[in-house]
Parts: sequence; structure tokens; C-alpha cells
Amino acid sequence: MRLDRIDHVGYAVDDLEEAIAYHRDLYDLTVLHRERMEADGVSEALLAVGGSYIQLLEPLTADSPVARFMEHNGGPGIHHVGYGVADVAETLAHLRTKGVRLVDDHPRRGSRGCTIAFLHPSSAMGVLVELVEDPR
Amino acid sequence: MRLDRIDHVGYAVDDLEEAIAYHRDLYDLTVLHRERMEADGVSEALLAVGGSYIQLLEPLTADSPVARFMEHNGGPGIHHVGYGVADVAETLAHLRTKGVRLVDDHPRRGSRGCTIAFLHPSSAMGVLVELVEDPR
Repeated sequence: MRLDRIDHVGYAVDDLEEAIAYHRDLYDLTVLHRERMEADGVSEALLAVGGSYIQLLEPLTADSPVARFMEHNGGPGIHHVGYGVADVAETLAHLRTKGVRLVDDHPRRGSRGCTIAFLHPSSAMGVLVELVEDPR
Repeated sequence: MRLDRIDHVGYAVDDLEEAIAYHRDLYDLTVLHRERMEADGVSEALLAVGGSYIQLLEPLTADSPVARFMEHNGGPGIHHVGYGVADVAETLAHLRTKGVRLVDDHPRRGSRGCTIAFLHPSSAMGVLVELVEDPR
């Protein structure tokens, strides 16, 4: 049961357009994909960095998890890290046998057609970890 | 001036051996490199994830930046993200013209023979960003 790659680093941001402009202006990074994820309460933009992504996340509502993260954090910052795995369902089953606490008991739909699941930070060194199975 | 890849995600941890055992037990990740970085006040271990790394950082002293991060954060978590660049000095010069606030005004030695510099979170969307030039 392996982590194949760092799929993305998720940034919680106040203003998506401002964050996109920042990365374009400083690093010539352009937006590969945009999506509004109602289930997660975010509007997201993906920027490619090598074979990985920076995922910019602006909360849609004041009580969305990303908004609450920023409140706790005192502002924007790194919200989570996503690791690529071959099979999210199998990885969850494996982690369950190890006693890892999960946020998502079952794989669910993520952005850009991926299958995802989050682990609970209390079982992952304080880090909010997302498992990502990318069909491409 | 580009970010070529996500070089690593840096985790602040309470206990390096425990964090190594956690990643070995759950994901079969093994330690590629260990180093004690007195200048940064950390003992580190690198785990390979695809072409990137998880960098585990245990503070050497109670007043090291990583220890202070954990105090502020309420425990372990993601401390910073490192992006690979072709030339740290050139990237710093470019960012300076853009008015970006730097932690390191000049490139310095990082672990495993890399040249590095940190940007200030106040100029990087609340994220502690490290630039990494890897000679290999």
C-alpha cells in the first residue's frame, strides 16, 4: 500500500482570483482546471507544478471547513496535502486495519474526476491527508 | 522564473522515530536520508514519495522555529512546502523585484547538499515556502 506521488498541496485562500494572479505574476503558473465543489464548500483552481499541483481553495460559505480552517489558522495557509494512490478503496481498507481514523469512510468523488478520501489529522501526524486516485 | 516541482512537504513532528515508524508501518515508506541541521534547529528524515519527499522535522530545542510553529499550531502539522527551482539566487532576485518579502536574503546550504532559501509567509499566501535547488 504505497503513496505514489505528491498529487497536490491545498492552499486555503481568501480570494481565488487574487491567488491565481499572484502565482501567474510571480511564477508564470497558469490555471489548468477550475471547479466549484459544493460538497466541500469550495471554489478551486489547479495550477501545475511539475507532475503535481497547487490547489487553491476559496470557501463558498463562512461555515465551510476551509473557512473554519482559516479562522483557526489566523488566515490563509496550507490546508492539506493530497497523495496519489493506485486505489483509494483498497488504501482505506488497509488503513482501517491499522486503526487509522478516517474523515471519509468510503471513497467519494473529488474534483477533475478523481476518487478521493480524507484521513483525520489526529491519525496522520496532525496533517489533513487526502488520498487521490486519478483515472488518467 | 518557474517552480519546477514540489520538492517536499515539511512536517513538524514531536518525535522523529515515531514519525518514521508511522510512515513505514502504514505506507512502507523508508528513510532515504537523515541529517541534523543545527542552523535550522532540526533533526530531519527524508522519505521518498514518487519524485518528491516527505521531510520529517523534529526540533532540536524548545525555541527552534519548528518548536515555535508547533506551539502556535497546537501540535504537529505541515510546517512548509519546498518547490524545486533551477537557480535559487536568480529566483530570489526575481522575487525581490516583485516586492516579495524574504526570510533568507541570500541562498544558503540546505540538507542533502541543496541550496535553499525561504520566503516569508506574509508574501506567500500565508504559506512558508522554501525554494530548493538540488544539484543532482
